Amino acid sequence: MIRLKFSITLDYQVLSPNCDFVFNFHPALNNRQNVREESLTIAQEVLSQTLVDTEEGTRYLRVQAYPGALSLSYQGIVDINHHYENPEALREMRVAELPMDVLPFIYPSRYCQSDSFAALANYEFGTMAPGYRRVLAIRDWVTHRTRFVSGSSGSATSALDTLIDHKGVCRDFAHLMIAMCRALNMPARFVSGIDYGADPALGPTDFHAYVEVMLSGRWYLFDPSGVTNPTGLLRLGTGRDAADVAFANVFGNVSAQPPRITIDALSDAEKGITLPTFTHQAVSSTDQQVCTGGLIQK
Amino acid sequence: MIRLKFSITLDYQVLSPNCDFVFNFHPALNNRQNVREESLTIAQEVLSQTLVDTEEGTRYLRVQAYPGALSLSYQGIVDINHHYENPEALREMRVAELPMDVLPFIYPSRYCQSDSFAALANYEFGTMAPGYRRVLAIRDWVTHRTRFVSGSSGSATSALDTLIDHKGVCRDFAHLMIAMCRALNMPARFVSGIDYGADPALGPTDFHAYVEVMLSGRWYLFDPSGVTNPTGLLRLGTGRDAADVAFANVFGNVSAQPPRITIDALSDAEKGITLPTFTHQAVSSTDQQVCTGGLIQK
Amino acid sequence: MIRLKFSITLDYQVLSPNCDFVFNFHPALNNRQNVREESLTIAQEVLSQTLVDTEEGTRYLRVQAYPGALSLSYQGIVDINHHYENPEALREMRVAELPMDVLPFIYPSRYCQSDSFAALANYEFGTMAPGYRRVLAIRDWVTHRTRFVSGSSGSATSALDTLIDHKGVCRDFAHLMIAMCRALNMPARFVSGIDYGADPALGPTDFHAYVEVMLSGRWYLFDPSGVTNPTGLLRLGTGRDAADVAFANVFGNVSAQPPRITIDALSDAEKGITLPTFTHQAVSSTDQQVCTGGLIQK
Amino acid sequence: MIRLKFSITLDYQVLSPNCDFVFNFHPALNNRQNVREESLTIAQEVLSQTLVDTEEGTRYLRVQAYPGALSLSYQGIVDINHHYENPEALREMRVAELPMDVLPFIYPSRYCQSDSFAALANYEFGTMAPGYRRVLAIRDWVTHRTRFVSGSSGSATSALDTLIDHKGVCRDFAHLMIAMCRALNMPARFVSGIDYGADPALGPTDFHAYVEVMLSGRWYLFDPSGVTNPTGLLRLGTGRDAADVAFANVFGNVSAQPPRITIDALSDAEKGITLPTFTHQAVSSTDQQVCTGGLIQK
Repeated sequence: MIRLKFSITLDYQVLSPNCDFVFNFHPALNNRQNVREESLTIAQEVLSQTLVDTEEGTRYLRVQAYPGALSLSYQGIVDINHHYENPEALREMRVAELPMDVLPFIYPSRYCQSDSFAALANYEFGTMAPGYRRVLAIRDWVTHRTRFVSGSSGSATSALDTLIDHKGVCRDFAHLMIAMCRALNMPARFVSGIDYGADPALGPTDFHAYVEVMLSGRWYLFDPSGVTNPTGLLRLGTGRDAADVAFANVFGNVSAQPPRITIDALSDAEKGITLPTFTHQAVSSTDQQVCTGGLIQK
Repeated sequence: MIRLKFSITLDYQVLSPNCDFVFNFHPALNNRQNVREESLTIAQEVLSQTLVDTEEGTRYLRVQAYPGALSLSYQGIVDINHHYENPEALREMRVAELPMDVLPFIYPSRYCQSDSFAALANYEFGTMAPGYRRVLAIRDWVTHRTRFVSGSSGSATSALDTLIDHKGVCRDFAHLMIAMCRALNMPARFVSGIDYGADPALGPTDFHAYVEVMLSGRWYLFDPSGVTNPTGLLRLGTGRDAADVAFANVFGNVSAQPPRITIDALSDAEKGITLPTFTHQAVSSTDQQVCTGGLIQK
Repeated sequence: MIRLKFSITLDYQVLSPNCDFVFNFHPALNNRQNVREESLTIAQEVLSQTLVDTEEGTRYLRVQAYPGALSLSYQGIVDINHHYENPEALREMRVAELPMDVLPFIYPSRYCQSDSFAALANYEFGTMAPGYRRVLAIRDWVTHRTRFVSGSSGSATSALDTLIDHKGVCRDFAHLMIAMCRALNMPARFVSGIDYGADPALGPTDFHAYVEVMLSGRWYLFDPSGVTNPTGLLRLGTGRDAADVAFANVFGNVSAQPPRITIDALSDAEKGITLPTFTHQAVSSTDQQVCTGGLIQK
Repeated sequence: MIRLKFSITLDYQVLSPNCDFVFNFHPALNNRQNVREESLTIAQEVLSQTLVDTEEGTRYLRVQAYPGALSLSYQGIVDINHHYENPEALREMRVAELPMDVLPFIYPSRYCQSDSFAALANYEFGTMAPGYRRVLAIRDWVTHRTRFVSGSSGSATSALDTLIDHKGVCRDFAHLMIAMCRALNMPARFVSGIDYGADPALGPTDFHAYVEVMLSGRWYLFDPSGVTNPTGLLRLGTGRDAADVAFANVFGNVSAQPPRITIDALSDAEKGITLPTFTHQAVSSTDQQVCTGGLIQK
């Protein structure tokens, strides 16, 4: 089990009279990610509301703010109990086998125009044997052809841009990998989070983005940015791409400070709490809902 | 009440040994759209499965087919009980007021890159008073600047393309209107369906696409293609854009015939069943789930 | 006649062992723009070469530099003798009438994808009477829908981007106007220059970009950015778009300071030298070569 | 020497009252391509004019046509005297060494957005030794990743599209290769022509498109579409990309038949006239003008 202690501080100056926020910085709640303790301070008398997506346990905080300073400070401790699997045992699934709520993740989305990647994905990986190794090959292809360059992309940058630019930040790596996977009919989705273990040379701790690919009926984690190990990821949001799980969507005029984030891993050998480490195993941090039904002979 | 009787026939030759289909041609089931009778014939011994999205009542038929001819023939009679509203009473909502499951419909999607339309939407409609009239103005702007040209667009055509091409088919009109609405923070979504009442000069009856915009907590129907009246629409699917509700997604190699579709409106004055007609009222054909929660003073 | 005195200073640190530059900051030489005096200082012992395009009198300075500081300082005084015309007398030309060397300016180019603008241009201006007024209408359409925002665009920004972004700098205004004109089969080209008379609130004097449209066999000046009057423009380069006449193309690795530019207008009533001012006349600053040939009955 | 005999027939129905054409189907005239005999028949009393670009010998036919049938029929015999070179002796040039009239061919153009290809080109070929072999490697990369599919692209298809689509026709292969070469600062340009020796399985003889890259001060021919040998190409036009040298630009409303083209190679052993064949030599079919000037020590 992994135990992560972390804090997030967000500072805004609200400039317009009406300004709504939708935040997604709470850790998701599912049966593999458990919040031991948490606290949130909002330094303005705002109307706020927490919304929970029952499918993935994503939590959204909605805030209706007034002009002036708005500061949010969150602290929490989260336990993550990963599921590990032998990669050789994992197989890609036929579309006919997929749970219905997984179908949206084989379709194209704003930043992952997988329909446009069909020819490329088949050119690069179409003759490779399906399975976990093929997903790793896609991940490595993204990692090797793309440079991590802070500030090199923006809110309109999509997988098609990253393909040609050969640079980006973690969300761009994730979008490119997702687009390639979906182009081969593999369900792939976007996970936003905070990660433990990144090289400090990359700069201060920031929000991170990973990829999940469904194999053998379960979502497995991949980090195409190569920044850290999947076991060090704490899940905030899960969506089709970054459009769904921005840490903050702002509807109004604000000025913002860069987020301030700390994260630490706690260990306790007696209780089986270890530090995140690299593993050759396939790693999953969510249990897919049981697929009701399945194919029935007509 | 409207009563529509319709049939859909789809013909394929499956060419690859493995071929999966995800169809969405069943009428959606909700408390304003009621299926009185229906039948489906599949002229091949296939594995099939019907999946229902409980939120919007969208029904998907999944088929695992064999090489050779595959023909599907659906017939049904559906009653639609529209909700009508005085347009002047409808108002746009703040993001802070939206039900959580509506949030995805203010975010950009594959074919509706609303983030890129922010400047244009504000340039064209930013100073107009919010409300139903503004939505109509957007609809008319789309209708007037775009020509309906069969075959002028393809599966990769997005709202950005339609903006510059000034032509398209119903799905392109819908995408462009949705992108403009979301760019102004109005929830907008894509409805696929079959419509009664189109001008026969436009060619044989085909699948249609409409737009829904949320005003005052309810989804209202708009047809930017100008093909017919919203009251003549029978709902098949509801999604972010066409990526979610194609009438057929095919995973394999097939050749396809054009769909053959018939639709007729039945009337029965005694039972209050009338023909679809134009109305100045705002028209809705689904009841939004109650928004659990709402803003709470911290 | 207009007399402009100006200076340009460019500062680079050359970082790579091999670094070539192609500059275009010399005033063009033609029979309406006459250089009275000029001097150029290059503060490095470089190999350099001045190239003159005999058609438009564009001058390119090519430099093969060494690692270290490279500073170029140019000063000159230029007389410009504009041709003025009554706008009502000007007409658009048929393609069959155009001089052959004008044909490239009705075709699309890197930043002016006029082929993609055909539908839009015809939608907005297709029914308007051809002539100078129509060109003014296109210019005003660009001016009004686009905001001047320093740093809002980059070297890959094209007319299609500016159309949707609704903002840019002078080169983006020029590209958008050129694309619209060519889409209506009007020859249009890109002029780089330095301008006298811009509002100091826009920031320090910088390179500028204008548009030339051919009417009645002559190129006339238009400034869609609305920054100043065409009579205040000093011509450096003339091309299809910014790809042809960057003030500096650098082939190697450098760091650069922002250009430092000064410009002043001299006047001398006795000699007929006046300050640049606004005029309702159509203004031209180059004489088109005589069109050899013309249509001959077969 | 190669001797090619060919004919071109173009058939139009002119529908609009005013319709201008700019054709480029005459063989170019230069000191390596000599027209022995030619004839042109235009089956309508049109105003026409032949224009010659003195730099490359490109000939344009401009026609001002009337409503009704317009048919053009050209026949000619052309001798081509190729220059052959040992590929190992050829080297890439520094920008500082290029003749001035070659500079436009290192800049991006409508269909060859080489500025956007910089990262990709350097990723794929940046570490390879400069020279003819590197150009061949780029050519092969284009050939292998792209499928030749008739009708798979259109007049708006650019190198960026072909990169992602992995299919196209000869002009798309050419655009992609040109974009990659220019991204590495190699002058590259587009040659339109007719080719002898294509596999008849590809369909009836059609116009073709090739690439020229400048090495050691001379333009050498490459065919990334892999359709035939450079020695079998007859040059019609030379330009930055297809925008410059379409075989027909039509300004008006017409319906067109597909071009009908025949080509044959004549041989005469006594006179040294041979059939086009494959060679490992580098092949050139034009002599570059002498580069006036060159770098001068300041």
